[in-house]
Amino acid sequence: MRRAIITLTTDFGLSDHFVGAMKGVILGIAPNAQIVDITHAIRPFQITEGAFAMAEACRFFPKKTVHVVVIDPGVGTARRPILAEAGGQYFVAPDNGVLSLVYARQKHRVRAVTAARYVLEPVSQTFHGRDVFAPVAAHLARGVPPTRFGKRIEDYCRLGFGQPVRTGKRFWQGAILKVDHFGNLITNFHIAEFPLLETRPFQFNVGQAAMGELARTFAGGAAGEPALIVGSSGYLEVAINQGSAAERLGVAAGAPVDLTIW
Amino acid sequence: MRRAIITLTTDFGLSDHFVGAMKGVILGIAPNAQIVDITHAIRPFQITEGAFAMAEACRFFPKKTVHVVVIDPGVGTARRPILAEAGGQYFVAPDNGVLSLVYARQKHRVRAVTAARYVLEPVSQTFHGRDVFAPVAAHLARGVPPTRFGKRIEDYCRLGFGQPVRTGKRFWQGAILKVDHFGNLITNFHIAEFPLLETRPFQFNVGQAAMGELARTFAGGAAGEPALIVGSSGYLEVAINQGSAAERLGVAAGAPVDLTIW
Amino acid sequence: MRRAIITLTTDFGLSDHFVGAMKGVILGIAPNAQIVDITHAIRPFQITEGAFAMAEACRFFPKKTVHVVVIDPGVGTARRPILAEAGGQYFVAPDNGVLSLVYARQKHRVRAVTAARYVLEPVSQTFHGRDVFAPVAAHLARGVPPTRFGKRIEDYCRLGFGQPVRTGKRFWQGAILKVDHFGNLITNFHIAEFPLLETRPFQFNVGQAAMGELARTFAGGAAGEPALIVGSSGYLEVAINQGSAAERLGVAAGAPVDLTIW
Repeated sequence: MRRAIITLTTDFGLSDHFVGAMKGVILGIAPNAQIVDITHAIRPFQITEGAFAMAEACRFFPKKTVHVVVIDPGVGTARRPILAEAGGQYFVAPDNGVLSLVYARQKHRVRAVTAARYVLEPVSQTFHGRDVFAPVAAHLARGVPPTRFGKRIEDYCRLGFGQPVRTGKRFWQGAILKVDHFGNLITNFHIAEFPLLETRPFQFNVGQAAMGELARTFAGGAAGEPALIVGSSGYLEVAINQGSAAERLGVAAGAPVDLTIW
Repeated sequence: MRRAIITLTTDFGLSDHFVGAMKGVILGIAPNAQIVDITHAIRPFQITEGAFAMAEACRFFPKKTVHVVVIDPGVGTARRPILAEAGGQYFVAPDNGVLSLVYARQKHRVRAVTAARYVLEPVSQTFHGRDVFAPVAAHLARGVPPTRFGKRIEDYCRLGFGQPVRTGKRFWQGAILKVDHFGNLITNFHIAEFPLLETRPFQFNVGQAAMGELARTFAGGAAGEPALIVGSSGYLEVAINQGSAAERLGVAAGAPVDLTIW
Repeated sequence: MRRAIITLTTDFGLSDHFVGAMKGVILGIAPNAQIVDITHAIRPFQITEGAFAMAEACRFFPKKTVHVVVIDPGVGTARRPILAEAGGQYFVAPDNGVLSLVYARQKHRVRAVTAARYVLEPVSQTFHGRDVFAPVAAHLARGVPPTRFGKRIEDYCRLGFGQPVRTGKRFWQGAILKVDHFGNLITNFHIAEFPLLETRPFQFNVGQAAMGELARTFAGGAAGEPALIVGSSGYLEVAINQGSAAERLGVAAGAPVDLTIW
């Protein structure tokens, strides 16, 4: 029998007992769950960053996987815990927009989690990852149907994630979505929305760098020169062969990006 | 059948092969064990920090869980490896006080591990995590009874962990136990021992900050102001809404804390 | 039935979704695999460092374990994916020398992975960890025989890893292989090749420090003094009791080491 998979994406870091306590709660309820860490290094409270990591990782998991996302600056306030279903998978998170990219990409339905029997009483004021999201995920993984956790809602939180804006007939303005571990700059230009880059002359500007063609591999650029590449997520990335583009160009998440297509 | 759970808490970091080697040893002996990392980011040799992480995490694991704690500045010296039983769980660690908070909270019995058949020969001088603690935990997880590992001892190491000291009729002095990933300051004042804070006027001083009430949530404080909150471990914490109290107040682990209750 | 073990060693870090995506791919193909992280903190593109971590960790895993090593500066170029068999275990990696220490220690055979059916189509240009190495490992773990993945090759990449060089009758020159999490300096002098150190007078020089005897434990040196010790990998290490030798001596990976034996 296939073991239920539960993934964890948080901003808890790995230096405290927080993630370990969540896993203890999960295994107490669903002893055969397979727990997979996506990342616990989302920068504190950065909902956009968590949304991106979750959306990129979940595509590679099988159906029925339960994804737990806890980037939760409003823990203890009125923001609701939610349970979303999308693409045959489950998502358990605070209702603060951290699932927006999942919603944007797939048909989905969302429930407010209200059933007290599936949380850890007494619920602390400050650690709903352990007391709410972990036990809800574990009960789901054991087979409790989503309808048991609460009613469907339509007014859940959706955040816009800075799609590039068309500012002229030939001009678009976008931004750096995030800087990855290697210093690659992941932009919010997705190749599926800009297929013209494959066939038409263009200029892509980030900081002091201007690029006019797509490289095929990280190793494709001239040594030390920034290269534009279609990243593994489909977003355009600015990379430097065996170097950090973020350091070289002095660019961070949020920095503006310009595109001109002729 | 429920798979045996083995948790790991060390100061080994994640940049070497050390933790991976321990897991290889465990899975060679107990192939069906479920291994859970609590944290490997205890600061090198900080026994107090390891004791706190272990005591906070173990509460959320099921009975029969085997917890391995390796913060071991005396590796290779005469300090004994021990096997403790408490609350229906097992703890395998060096006898240097790293289990003191487990002892303080629960009835327990402690054995010196002396049975050579359950360690990895030849035992290295420097890596007992791999050669002693991992195999002992794996054999326990497979069902070897605790009595087989060695005799009970009473002279095991217990460390005092700076309980707050009453310095006057209305005054207590305590300390910051640790700073968590978010910069929250976890003090050694536990709400169970200071229930008066719920009902009586008080002043709580940390660095330049003075607090006179308990906030209900991290989001409860005025923006940028330090707030006092009952943390998820029951200890009072000083937090700043979406900021780092440690940075704002310039305070680190070990810093003094004063409490006056009227 | 014993669950197949798949280990992961990469330079991907833990702050992105990369490792999580690999695990999703693996569990989609081999739902019962036991996935073990060796480390994801190999410094970007440091093939030598990855080779060392893999060679040290794999020794402690059971037969049939599948090890995945992705330190891959040439991703997307013509470098081949390979599948090596050694010591009853499997290794999946780019053919860039990252398995050189495995080859040096054990009889082995190497195949170029060419069977398209075992990779994730379309293969991205930049993330073969997810699209090639993870699915190949998962199919292996499910029992697909190695012969199915491609033909044996003999011209695979082998790197020399700076064995100490004899520069005189009594003199050897070597280097620091790596600095571990504690700041211990792991040299490329292996005790198996220098057994004379156990019985003969010698002088071992690193930076400003000169050592003339082997300490038995980390705690064996005089406080604050560098001590020479046979590390858990068999290599000589320079350590400082509860301190960082790297910081104290101002020495990093690659630094020269001299040995004189009388």
